[in-house]
Amino acid sequence: MTAPLKIAIAGLGTVGGGVVKALAERGDELFARAGRKIEIVGVSARDPKKARGFAVSGFTADPVALASGNADVIVELIGGEDGVALALVEAALANKKHVVTANKALLAKHGRKLALLAEKNGVQLKFEAAVAGGIPIVKTLREALISQPVNAVKGILNGTCNYILTEMETSGAPFAEVLAEAQRLGYAEADPALDVGGGDTAHKLALLSTLAFGVVPDTGSMTVEGISAITPEDIGFAREFGFRIKLLGVARRTKSGIDQKVHLSMVRARSPLAHVEGAANAVLVDAGAAGSFFFSGRGAGEAPTASAVIADIVEVARGAFAPVFGRPADTLESKPTAAGSTVSAWYLRFEVLDLPGVLAEIAGHLSQAKVSIESMIQRGRAHGEPVSIVMITHETAQDSVERALKAIAGSDKVRARPCMIPMEAA
Amino acid sequence: MTAPLKIAIAGLGTVGGGVVKALAERGDELFARAGRKIEIVGVSARDPKKARGFAVSGFTADPVALASGNADVIVELIGGEDGVALALVEAALANKKHVVTANKALLAKHGRKLALLAEKNGVQLKFEAAVAGGIPIVKTLREALISQPVNAVKGILNGTCNYILTEMETSGAPFAEVLAEAQRLGYAEADPALDVGGGDTAHKLALLSTLAFGVVPDTGSMTVEGISAITPEDIGFAREFGFRIKLLGVARRTKSGIDQKVHLSMVRARSPLAHVEGAANAVLVDAGAAGSFFFSGRGAGEAPTASAVIADIVEVARGAFAPVFGRPADTLESKPTAAGSTVSAWYLRFEVLDLPGVLAEIAGHLSQAKVSIESMIQRGRAHGEPVSIVMITHETAQDSVERALKAIAGSDKVRARPCMIPMEAA
Repeated sequence: MTAPLKIAIAGLGTVGGGVVKALAERGDELFARAGRKIEIVGVSARDPKKARGFAVSGFTADPVALASGNADVIVELIGGEDGVALALVEAALANKKHVVTANKALLAKHGRKLALLAEKNGVQLKFEAAVAGGIPIVKTLREALISQPVNAVKGILNGTCNYILTEMETSGAPFAEVLAEAQRLGYAEADPALDVGGGDTAHKLALLSTLAFGVVPDTGSMTVEGISAITPEDIGFAREFGFRIKLLGVARRTKSGIDQKVHLSMVRARSPLAHVEGAANAVLVDAGAAGSFFFSGRGAGEAPTASAVIADIVEVARGAFAPVFGRPADTLESKPTAAGSTVSAWYLRFEVLDLPGVLAEIAGHLSQAKVSIESMIQRGRAHGEPVSIVMITHETAQDSVERALKAIAGSDKVRARPCMIPMEAA
Repeated sequence: MTAPLKIAIAGLGTVGGGVVKALAERGDELFARAGRKIEIVGVSARDPKKARGFAVSGFTADPVALASGNADVIVELIGGEDGVALALVEAALANKKHVVTANKALLAKHGRKLALLAEKNGVQLKFEAAVAGGIPIVKTLREALISQPVNAVKGILNGTCNYILTEMETSGAPFAEVLAEAQRLGYAEADPALDVGGGDTAHKLALLSTLAFGVVPDTGSMTVEGISAITPEDIGFAREFGFRIKLLGVARRTKSGIDQKVHLSMVRARSPLAHVEGAANAVLVDAGAAGSFFFSGRGAGEAPTASAVIADIVEVARGAFAPVFGRPADTLESKPTAAGSTVSAWYLRFEVLDLPGVLAEIAGHLSQAKVSIESMIQRGRAHGEPVSIVMITHETAQDSVERALKAIAGSDKVRARPCMIPMEAA
């Protein structure tokens, strides 16, 4: 019989605890699937004395020390793009230990370097839990949707953002209020910047883009936008036009290369992405001739994320080998292109003073920039009060719309910054 | 460098042709992913002289002969639950050749026996293309959603049925007319029985059930219903109640075992299954504590199915080993339980003669069987003409409803067989 697979877990938070519990509860089942036992031989956590509701032995205060212990696999659940997590993963790979991680920030920044190190040392570096929690999208892009060139990958990749947008739609409350409530309930971090600013989505998109297109993981070339500028008014207008507003990470093949963006998007009600509610995650893959594939499910939390970690551990146990990003790391092409000007229809909202000539002025600037309007809604309030003018444009290049908006923003009849959101084609 | 992987393809129809073309067009990419070249060393097809738009060599008239050739992998694309396909796969596995197949009928009938043979001989038997075409649901259940017990798997698994139901909804035309048009367009087979009768869905469900629950693949214990009884009227009423009618394959864990059914179902408009249109396929997996996961995409056709076959071939090339059904075939538990009585809310439609007392008679029989009604629609026509009475029941056991319907069908005021469709809970 094959010897047990020895694993060491660094980080015993929600996910690490879920892994320990699932291994204890489902040991026999996983043994049957893996063909060998999975044994925890070391753990590391900030506070070894914390009550966790499960027993573990082999504590060490220094996670990096796990990399020189007797484990075959290091499970890195510390997080962070540098620091201890990087030191541990580098040391583990250099010591010919497999690594399973949920760390998107680390891989988005050092993915190529770490994949090269893993492949040079003949060990695996697996990261299913890093993107979209329990949805096996890493496996799918790495191993399944490989026989046709992928045209685009679009994802709702941050549960906190999607939860806030869904709550804003349901309650009509403004962003700041919904965020505060989400923080109170533990659905948003005390420091929500990485989530609501789009940075976490950017990390995950970089990994999906590498898997789908073979480019080096790179967030530097992305445009990244968050959700804080959105108002309940925009969400309401979107609904009137038959759309919903979602924060998407989008990577697509264009004539000039691979374009990656994180931005708010108007998603048509008939698109499966429109129906992704609350903290769920979803990914749509346009796999060219093979058609479009859609995947959705829980993107965070103990059981779904631990499930992804355990699936990776079982694959290591089986000895199933696949290149970290689906093809050898030294064949990854250089960086994605700088995000170019998107061509799409646009949702535009202007908050204006209801004074004579304001519509003429806006229409004039749009016309000068050759932006033509498909439909428009104007809602009156009391005379002299600010009102919203909402327009949907025909397909137009982003820079033309931006030129018009810059001119319009200069008007003394227009309050605040106009809002501009692309309409997602599919 | 590792030696090329030699494959032989039996069957050069749509899928086989797609595999040959994709290997030719994407050879370099697949080489990078697989770590070795993939070389076609043999093919077999009914008509070797047929013009196919691609060149192949190594023709043999007898597909079974491929099993004794020099190929490492036999790609079985002949189809059929017995006969040549079975002979070829058995011979190949016995000769220690890996097998990649798209043959759901073969595996639904002989899955356990063939998996045992493959595992005894240390070779792989892979079948991603057998279920839901390009959607990697076999891989997902075998390798990803494994750390929590699955509660249920529900799928729209037959593109022809879903195409017909979608067309009936769009056009309002009756089943027979839409089927004839689908046949004319090539979306339905000349002999549509296996598709529209639910048999093909049953084959696929048996495989999903085995992957999800570890039971032996078995269609014998299933109740299997097709779509031919459905009328445009039912589809219209469903829509009025906020539902859509879909043919589902459902396997679920119950107190008495694993229950498997293929049946028409009322799917709530907010369920992702409701939005699966045309020939698409979809699968919803209730993975217990890890939550529900939804997967959709093209379930048939050249590129999606060939894509699944190629993903399997690349895995064999990499030497990635996983048990055929995710756990050793000798640990598969015995058969699923006989399909029990479903407890759900029910859609009931009675076509009645608009005569005094008919509603009282129906209501009386329902009440006697303790079936209580949640809502009802009656549409009037001319007096004395048949009219439809539609009811949604509260949650009731199937056998109670069936008892009432049997009594009602005996009435001389009720025309034809009453229609009875369960309302899907999620």
